[in-house]
Amino acid sequence: MLVNGHPQDSLPLADRAIHYGDGAFETVLVSESRLVHWSRHMARLKRACDFLKIPLNTQLIELDVRSLLKQSQGSCIIKIMVTRGAGGRGYMPPEHPLPTRIVTAHTLPSAYADLSQRGVCVVRCKHPVSENAALAGMKHLNRLDQVLASMELPVDCQEGLMCNSRGLLIEGTKSNVFLARSGTLMTPLLDRSGVAGIQREVILEYCSQNQLQVAVREIPFAEAVEADEIFMCNSVFGIWPVTELRCEGTVHHLSIGPFARMLQNAMTEHAPDHG
Amino acid sequence: MLVNGHPQDSLPLADRAIHYGDGAFETVLVSESRLVHWSRHMARLKRACDFLKIPLNTQLIELDVRSLLKQSQGSCIIKIMVTRGAGGRGYMPPEHPLPTRIVTAHTLPSAYADLSQRGVCVVRCKHPVSENAALAGMKHLNRLDQVLASMELPVDCQEGLMCNSRGLLIEGTKSNVFLARSGTLMTPLLDRSGVAGIQREVILEYCSQNQLQVAVREIPFAEAVEADEIFMCNSVFGIWPVTELRCEGTVHHLSIGPFARMLQNAMTEHAPDHG
Repeated sequence: MLVNGHPQDSLPLADRAIHYGDGAFETVLVSESRLVHWSRHMARLKRACDFLKIPLNTQLIELDVRSLLKQSQGSCIIKIMVTRGAGGRGYMPPEHPLPTRIVTAHTLPSAYADLSQRGVCVVRCKHPVSENAALAGMKHLNRLDQVLASMELPVDCQEGLMCNSRGLLIEGTKSNVFLARSGTLMTPLLDRSGVAGIQREVILEYCSQNQLQVAVREIPFAEAVEADEIFMCNSVFGIWPVTELRCEGTVHHLSIGPFARMLQNAMTEHAPDHG
Repeated sequence: MLVNGHPQDSLPLADRAIHYGDGAFETVLVSESRLVHWSRHMARLKRACDFLKIPLNTQLIELDVRSLLKQSQGSCIIKIMVTRGAGGRGYMPPEHPLPTRIVTAHTLPSAYADLSQRGVCVVRCKHPVSENAALAGMKHLNRLDQVLASMELPVDCQEGLMCNSRGLLIEGTKSNVFLARSGTLMTPLLDRSGVAGIQREVILEYCSQNQLQVAVREIPFAEAVEADEIFMCNSVFGIWPVTELRCEGTVHHLSIGPFARMLQNAMTEHAPDHG
């Protein structure tokens, strides 16, 4: 664990991450010492920090990450948090914040690769996602919705589907979601809620470059129940086909579809980034 | 600063407050060594922790507060944060969390008493409040909306008015809001957004006991511009009459009205709690 480049396992109580969740974060996959989609992660972090008016030095973050990776070979997950640091008067931030960089390394859960192959069970969560067009898409540190939705997952379900107050499907608790129906791919529009995931971005880009149409639109949850194929995606596990959807006491079984398999293959070839 | 009863100025990096804002808080006024509205604050904290499924021991919190107050005589502000502590797998909390209690004392800003007398300037903030019926009313640690709205306050404005995406007036950045028009008091309904403040609760109770009708309802922001009287309230500063409202380049001047003055007097007599 590095805080502003120094090994440290605690944070000053005055840090605004503790009081307000005043910051943003990224979770980056390290695959055989490569930082997968590094520049995309840094670009998204920059967009969040620009919006929050938190000064960001991505070069220092990269130095921190490289320094941390010296100790852990192979594959892992790197979590990068950038907070506004200490100070200010209550909610009002200091005029010239001194941000805090927190970089931690985590073990890749051993089950993830297997789940990509055999598929996962997802449940519809009751806790709704918050709606706010100004924050939509951003990976900020206000994540109580995801915590509350995660608490609804039964032990044998790997992910939960979250909807907004109008019953529109938005995302998973830790991933984005795609559906396919009658040969057409679709994924929820994230204009009022949700995190615009890097894996989602890569899939959308790949589809666009390969003349595969994806409808990015409002998706009522009922369409998930009627889908031929559902898959979840994030930067760490890639693509998880959904083989079971639980919703209000009923269980829907799904087959692993051609889109999930095709995109899994494409993503493996498409993943390279920072050597 | 006390963390779980021990003097400490830092928090373990693993604490879920840092990663997710996974917790709740209270800000309590200490007036001449009395904890004003203590039981109400503890009741609200209990409701939040029950909802979040964070075990809460209010007796330990009171011991922490008493211990901290031994060192600081007179009047101050006590901030109490309760987090879910460390652990869990990502967003998913541990089954048996060991919560963290954080208690800090702060100086009461010297200008507050004077502002209660001569009134404040408020500006309409552009940043919208997030909407989520499940979280509405709760004083949780996800406070990015309030941070972002606070950043819009000009130096000569003491508070900002926040609206939801539909332009309904919700609250101040650190307070609740009441309006009066043609002799009738009103305050926004907080069923989808906002913090249900203790001072707001006390005012509503006082009005109800004294046959003073208050409309708790949806209030389009335009009604604020047309109000005869506006005042802000919170547990720390009590009641601030609004004498200037800035909105989209225009400045509206207001007189300090009879409701603000009457309720200020009533609250002074009504405040006592924990000796």
